[in-house]
Amino acid sequence: MKTIGVDVGGTKILCRLVDPETGKARGRTKARTPKSGPADVLASIAELVAKLDPDHEAVAIGVGFPGYVRPDGVVVHCTNISGWDQPIDVGPVLRKSTGRPVVVGNDVSLGALAEHRLGAGQGEQDLLAVFVGTGVGGGLILDGQIRDGDRGLAGEIGHLTVHTNGRLCGCGGRGHLEAYAGKAGIEREARRLAANGETSFLMDMVQNGSMKSRHVHQALEAGDPVTLRLMTEAVDALAQAIGNVATILDIRRVVLGGGMTDKFGQDFVDQIAASSSFGGFGSAKLQLRLAERMDDAGAVGAALLAADSLAPS
Amino acid sequence: MKTIGVDVGGTKILCRLVDPETGKARGRTKARTPKSGPADVLASIAELVAKLDPDHEAVAIGVGFPGYVRPDGVVVHCTNISGWDQPIDVGPVLRKSTGRPVVVGNDVSLGALAEHRLGAGQGEQDLLAVFVGTGVGGGLILDGQIRDGDRGLAGEIGHLTVHTNGRLCGCGGRGHLEAYAGKAGIEREARRLAANGETSFLMDMVQNGSMKSRHVHQALEAGDPVTLRLMTEAVDALAQAIGNVATILDIRRVVLGGGMTDKFGQDFVDQIAASSSFGGFGSAKLQLRLAERMDDAGAVGAALLAADSLAPS
Repeated sequence: MKTIGVDVGGTKILCRLVDPETGKARGRTKARTPKSGPADVLASIAELVAKLDPDHEAVAIGVGFPGYVRPDGVVVHCTNISGWDQPIDVGPVLRKSTGRPVVVGNDVSLGALAEHRLGAGQGEQDLLAVFVGTGVGGGLILDGQIRDGDRGLAGEIGHLTVHTNGRLCGCGGRGHLEAYAGKAGIEREARRLAANGETSFLMDMVQNGSMKSRHVHQALEAGDPVTLRLMTEAVDALAQAIGNVATILDIRRVVLGGGMTDKFGQDFVDQIAASSSFGGFGSAKLQLRLAERMDDAGAVGAALLAADSLAPS
Repeated sequence: MKTIGVDVGGTKILCRLVDPETGKARGRTKARTPKSGPADVLASIAELVAKLDPDHEAVAIGVGFPGYVRPDGVVVHCTNISGWDQPIDVGPVLRKSTGRPVVVGNDVSLGALAEHRLGAGQGEQDLLAVFVGTGVGGGLILDGQIRDGDRGLAGEIGHLTVHTNGRLCGCGGRGHLEAYAGKAGIEREARRLAANGETSFLMDMVQNGSMKSRHVHQALEAGDPVTLRLMTEAVDALAQAIGNVATILDIRRVVLGGGMTDKFGQDFVDQIAASSSFGGFGSAKLQLRLAERMDDAGAVGAALLAADSLAPS
């Protein structure tokens, strides 16, 4: 059996034909994400599927979106896709245009599913996947399945409070993990400090440009004290939030991915594991691992979800 | 169909005959918990069962223990039962002595199950139950079932970190919810403050005796500033931890019970709901409710688990 997995990103749409038993992905098509609105995005998905699998070898299709996907499959909004300003029930549209059953999900949760079945989460019942990049995303696998939760928002570890009345988060909340560990949060805080007279090598490099993970890396290498402090706060915030999730759910393995994690690698994982902020009962037995799947985790996870949707439950 | 639920407490063992469909409990037997070790506790359970149901009307038995129960049913330790200093696989022993299938669980999780099916959690898929008493216990129901987790420790909300490097918890950790919201934690902090010269009406009342919920209540009524501050910290810590659990799991309803909650009632729930420390995305839609089940929640929950164990999964 084959299924197709589609990963819809802010810049590109990636489409892969997958054997869900082995996770082997064969063939890929991709395209730039249309800027002209959801209808064109959905049309592009159908084109990519037709080009990838003209003979209808795949029996079902999974599609991951970068936004809020309700458990009933309605894509409420996609942060990075222009014009997606109202909920769309994409399943029926794509079913018609591709001629096959379609399931949809959140891209981060689907990445977590791929890590669980085929990456650093293999062999575990449960998995928390944390993606540290511009923001901090997360996906939760419980008993082998994606935990959606009431509204489809489960796994959002970036919006756990780590410091009461702490830093302002992009979402408007206070003291959330993402405000400490996400690249955008670190940049905001470094700029705020610089504006208050606490300059840093980090901000000297970045100036009015946009801060990249490599800037943080270079500033750390140079021993910039502000960057060192900000990274310690990031690591401690991650340790606290991860420890708390591991404790309340009693899970054993946590996988870390995302752009910032890629930049700092195993050292980043080791620092989190060694943090004194590790909360709860969870730390002693917790296995923190680097994510193993590459850029296609979202697409492969979508293909796995499509296969699950066909299996008798 | 009938099942029997047994709630093993530190002072008494309560045994009830339950119709798991309706939750109606008929008949009860109880006894003081033997201080002479686990063998006598298990013998007492069998006696209570025989007395309650001499005609074997019940087809299965559930037993809740106040301690760490592994998912495979082994009771690793029971904090409040003398001599329970090594893991015991109680199932086979009780199966033999009662002549019926026996399942075991943690008493707090079983209380949560009773609240979910028959109390303030009715109609929901998921439920977090938080019991605020001497300590802070918790039980987690996901998709209608108790979440055990890897080692059987899921739901332990009392040991989530709310303040990095904060107050010392009874478990040896730092900054855990229980150190702020449990009665023992509040008492420890009030004594520490008094020893450092910050006396309070609360400690004046308690002296060298043991602090009760009613002392806290009286001190609050009297406007004692130390007690007011400690209770605000307790409420904020509960709000932060509950908000975080609701966010990571995207659950909608939380039930509050336990001795401290009973003492302060709906006002306590309202204060938590109104706290500015409410973390995460979870607060807006969250329904915080007082627990509805009385002292027999543990026994009834145990009877429900026994019925579940017979159902084809």
